[in-house]
This record gives sequence, C-alpha cells and structure tokens, in this order.
Amino acid sequence: MKVHGKAWRSIWLAEDGRRVGIIDQTRLPHEFRVAILADLEDAARAIRDMQVRGAPLIGATAAYGFCLGLWDDAGDKNLDRIGATLIACRPTAVNLRWAVERLEAVLRPLPPEQRPAVAYREAARICDEDVAVNEAIGNHGLHLIRTAWEKMDRRGPVRILTHCNAGWLATVDWGTALAPVYKAHAAGIPLLVLVDETRPRSQGASLTAWELTAEGVDHRLIVDNAGGHLMQHGLVDLCIVGTDRTTAGGDVCNKIGTYLKALAAHANGVPFYVALPGSTVDWRISDGVREIPIEERSQDEVLWVQGLTRSGRLEPVRIAPEATAALNPAFDVTPAALVTGLITERGVCPASREGLASLFPEMAAA
Amino acid sequence: MKVHGKAWRSIWLAEDGRRVGIIDQTRLPHEFRVAILADLEDAARAIRDMQVRGAPLIGATAAYGFCLGLWDDAGDKNLDRIGATLIACRPTAVNLRWAVERLEAVLRPLPPEQRPAVAYREAARICDEDVAVNEAIGNHGLHLIRTAWEKMDRRGPVRILTHCNAGWLATVDWGTALAPVYKAHAAGIPLLVLVDETRPRSQGASLTAWELTAEGVDHRLIVDNAGGHLMQHGLVDLCIVGTDRTTAGGDVCNKIGTYLKALAAHANGVPFYVALPGSTVDWRISDGVREIPIEERSQDEVLWVQGLTRSGRLEPVRIAPEATAALNPAFDVTPAALVTGLITERGVCPASREGLASLFPEMAAA
Repeated sequence: MKVHGKAWRSIWLAEDGRRVGIIDQTRLPHEFRVAILADLEDAARAIRDMQVRGAPLIGATAAYGFCLGLWDDAGDKNLDRIGATLIACRPTAVNLRWAVERLEAVLRPLPPEQRPAVAYREAARICDEDVAVNEAIGNHGLHLIRTAWEKMDRRGPVRILTHCNAGWLATVDWGTALAPVYKAHAAGIPLLVLVDETRPRSQGASLTAWELTAEGVDHRLIVDNAGGHLMQHGLVDLCIVGTDRTTAGGDVCNKIGTYLKALAAHANGVPFYVALPGSTVDWRISDGVREIPIEERSQDEVLWVQGLTRSGRLEPVRIAPEATAALNPAFDVTPAALVTGLITERGVCPASREGLASLFPEMAAA
Repeated sequence: MKVHGKAWRSIWLAEDGRRVGIIDQTRLPHEFRVAILADLEDAARAIRDMQVRGAPLIGATAAYGFCLGLWDDAGDKNLDRIGATLIACRPTAVNLRWAVERLEAVLRPLPPEQRPAVAYREAARICDEDVAVNEAIGNHGLHLIRTAWEKMDRRGPVRILTHCNAGWLATVDWGTALAPVYKAHAAGIPLLVLVDETRPRSQGASLTAWELTAEGVDHRLIVDNAGGHLMQHGLVDLCIVGTDRTTAGGDVCNKIGTYLKALAAHANGVPFYVALPGSTVDWRISDGVREIPIEERSQDEVLWVQGLTRSGRLEPVRIAPEATAALNPAFDVTPAALVTGLITERGVCPASREGLASLFPEMAAA
C-alpha cells in the first residue's frame, strides 16, 4: 500500500539482492523508519523486538532471515542452527515455525552451494503468495462493502468498525480485515473507518490509524468502549476484524475485545465479518472457548501507555497507582454464532463447519 | 474512607470553620494533594478544572462554594451572582444546579446577617445526606455480595467487575457502586475487584484503583477489552457499576463502555447491578436510548493519555498519528433488560417501572 504516495510492502529485498528491508513498526505512528536486515541476527532481533509483527509478516521475515543466515555457512548443521535461532524468537508464532520448516524442506535435499539462491526464491514466493491471498480476501470483501453501499442507495460513506491491526503492516501487503477496505477505497466507494484503539497495545491507534492516514482513507479513532453505543445508534454499517486462529467450527480467536464488539453487533443487527487466510483455520479443534488457551501477557502493557510527549519524545507513562497490579489476557474467542461470515481467499462463507468445508473441502476431509 | 490509614471525606470544612478542603483529583493516582478553597473563585475553579468530579461531590462543592461567596456580601444581589457563577462552571451537571437552588431557597427568606451560618449548616447537611444515602446503598449491596459468597460456599474471593469510578471520590464518602465493596470488605468477605481502565479518561486506572489501594481492597486493573473474556470463562461473579441518570423504565446511562459489559454479563449469566441514589432517577423519561442525548467530548481525551513518565513527570502523550481525528461519545445507555437489579438507598429492585415504583412510590406517582 502507499506511504507518502509511494507503494510499499512491509518487507522487501534490497537492491543488492541480499539484504532485506522492513518498516520499524515500533516507531509508528510517530516516525516512519526503514530498517535494513543484514544478517540472521538482525532478522531475529526484528522479530523478537516486534519491529515486525502479525503472523504473515513474521513468517516472511523468518523466511528472509533464513536466507541471510546462509551467507555464513549453507551446510546442514547451519540449517539446524538457523531454524532454531528463528523459532526461539517467538516460540508460539505458528507462521514462524511454518516458514522455517518450509525453507528447511526445500533446502535440505540440495547441495549447499545451491541453497542461497533457492532460499531467496522461496522467501519471495512466500511473500507473493501472502499478497495474492490477501488481495483475494480484499476482492471478496469488496463485494460485501459494495452491497452495503448499494443498500443505502449509495448515500453517505459505508461506516466500517475494525479492531486491532489486521492491515498491510501485519502481512506483506493489503492486510486481511483492511484488504476489503483498501479495495473499496480504490473502487471509489466512500468509507468511514471506525478504528478501535485496542488497548493494551493500542495497535488501532498506532498502526491502523497510521495505515489509513497514509492511504488516505477517512477514519476516526474511538476508544474500545465506544463501539457498542455507536452500533446501538445505527452509526456502524458493518464490522470487519482479523483473526489469529479460527476453529473448524468457526469460532474466532482474535485480539482481546473482539468478543465484546461481536456481542454488540449481534444485539444491534450489525453484520460482523472476520477476514482470514484459510491457513489460519485450525482444523483440529472445534470449540474455541474451551480449546484455545489464551496467552496472558505482561502487566506492564496495561499499566503503561506509550506515546509522544508534547516535546516530541516517545515515552511510556504509567496510568495506575504504583501498588496496583493488572491482568492482561491478550486474546479472546468470539463464538461462531456471533459471526455473520468469514471472508477468505476462496470466498465468503458462514462461520460453521459446513461453511468452512464448502470452501476448503480438502482440509475439512483431512 | 481511608487514605494511609486515616479516615477522609472527599470534601470537608477546615478547622477555621470557614474554608473548605478537597482532594485535588487531577493529581491522582500519582500524588495525594489536598487543596484549600478560600473563596467562591477557588470553588468555581475546582469544579471547572475537575479537581472535584462526580455528581454528588460537585453538588457538595457547589454548596460550600455558595457559603464561601457569602463572605464578600450576603445581600440578595450577590445570591444571584454566586448561583450564576457556580452553575456556569459545568452547565450540564444536574447536581450542581440542584445544590445551588437548594441553598438559594433556604437563604433567600433570611436577613443577610443570618445567611452565612445557615448556609454552612445546609452545606453540611447536603454532605451528610449524601453519606447516609451511599451508606444505605452499601448495606443493601453488601447483602448481594454476601449471598454470592455463600453461594460459593465461602470459598475464594467474590470477583466483582466495575467500570469507571463510582467510588467515594465521586461522592462525599462511600461512593455508590463501591459502597457495597467497602461494606463487604469491612465485613470480612474476601474480594477481588476487577477494575476497568475506562478510557478515554481512565478513571478506573487513576481513581478506582487508587481508592481500592488506599482502602486495602485486593484488585486488578484490566483494559476495557478484557471483561467479556473474563465473564465468558467464569472469572467474574458479579458486576456493579454506577450511573449518571436512570430512566423511570430502568434504562441506565453511565460512562461509555458500560453497555458492552452489560451485554457480556447477560450473555454469560453474570449478575449486572447498578448502584444509584434515588435522586438520579429521571422520572420524566422512559426510553433511555432514544431520549437521553449523549455528550460528545473533546477528541483530545481519545488522542492523548496522561500518566507518569519514568522520571516522575505527569505528562500527556499522544497515541495516534497527528492527522487522525477521533470520535468521543462520553456515555452510553444500557437497556433495562440487561440490568439484573438496581441497588438504591431504599433497597434492591428490578430495573423496571414497577421495580422503581415499588421503592419510590411518591416519585413514580408525581
């Protein structure tokens, strides 16, 4: 997508055909800074320090990190070391492991001297596949937005509420939940995106608002408390969110607070869509509330808020008394019954076993 | 309630019998600072700058502000000026106008030389009445908490979720939603209070967490996004919130985000109580969603967060891109159907016309 009018991806091969560029997301929205990854350790640090985040982008960064690691030594033993180094950066990131295993499987059978070139080709392929999947999600979601717009006789903007950041910064390009937004914007449909702040890490305020600003999509930041009231008063036409993991039954695990918005949407007849690549469906489980363990993250994410001071310093400030402790569950599960539909690269389906099986029969049967 | 082991009210008459002490709530939770109001302008500034907030405390401060204004001149003309000065501080605060009108009605018939003494007596009465009402709410709510504790065979703490600050800092003492908590704590019932941060102004993090810390009640701060997940997993035994205005039909207007928690409580079978003095029932209206206009406050409350930097300065930080605008509805309405019961000074009743009429027949008939 665009930044200052120029097209970007969130990760790219540098002109030397060796090093890798990323956007340092820890500085956003206050500073747009590119970081160049020159070796395996740079890539590992970028993942660990969350300069890159979002499952697809972590996977892509791991793939390129693997390439960078081969310059030292492309022998068998080093393949193991590279894989272990990358996976240790964020042990629970499913896409990270998936990308590492994909590179290993392709490279292992080859003689070491052929491995670097093949690795770069495979990393580029992972990126291009992600872009294609997200663009397909965007096209299917565009159809839903267009339908909503036509229902309102093309009067006024379509008001779309989103939570957290499921935009192009979380993927290689387009994003998942925001891909339909970008497609609709490009198609000339007037939009107003209502951006949930998404405490505790405030990815809505820092990343989604920044993406939409850069792309020129009209939007308003709202606190996480506001969406229910807005839906109750008919001020939201549809919700689109992303997901980290969807069960075979259509339950959706996503950033904490998604469930509250789904309840409000359901109570007020507002369509609630979840955008996802088929690869994030976990076909082994069905009941998300009972079967998905929820990560409990650091209290400091709740107790401190980072932002830009009046004098332009990026600083965290503490919002609670020193003696107060916090609970910080990072995700929640929205039961399938609250989800109007799943927007995938193969089309839109009901959030149910049958719905998913209709689009991904080969996975549902496995 | 207690601060550093000593009993406080949120407003009191100084030892000289003339000046008035308050807690400067804009410095909390990071600094406990008393401010002394010496004249009408001090009182007006305290209300305007939100050193005091919460409807009952604003009313009490206005009453004492009226007393302070009489020292200049207790003549008829000055009564008008004092009233106008105070009401202009926060024109929509119902209790402010109510307190001013009560003082005027009592003083107007008296000769000017008698007015100061009577005014101080009336202001003290307003404070004492508020304390008595809140203590009665606390006793009725205590019964609910005790019942919940006995239902769980007195095992483990009763886990109570609350939103915003409806504690003693919002009133003269005890609070409304927190009065039952303090009564239960004093009665030896183990508690764990889950405190919603309550963006945008974060009164949960800054005021409720501070009150509970000072009083020694175990609590955890949570982001506004977390309550749904906690209720879904059986980690909340009941919710108690306050209200700014309740309709004759039992719809509850309260700080933005209350509605989302009520939806989650309803979906998960968690009792959802609202604590209120009967004086905050608006008997003229019934449908809160349609009839209560919702104040839209400054965007800056959403875009900036205030807290303490690592080096100990109280500073606001901006969390969004410079070009991003915000929407900031300050309150929402929870339909009566989502409310398990109303805790008033006269007892607990269903959130309905019949329920309220059973406790306040003289008001319902008027």
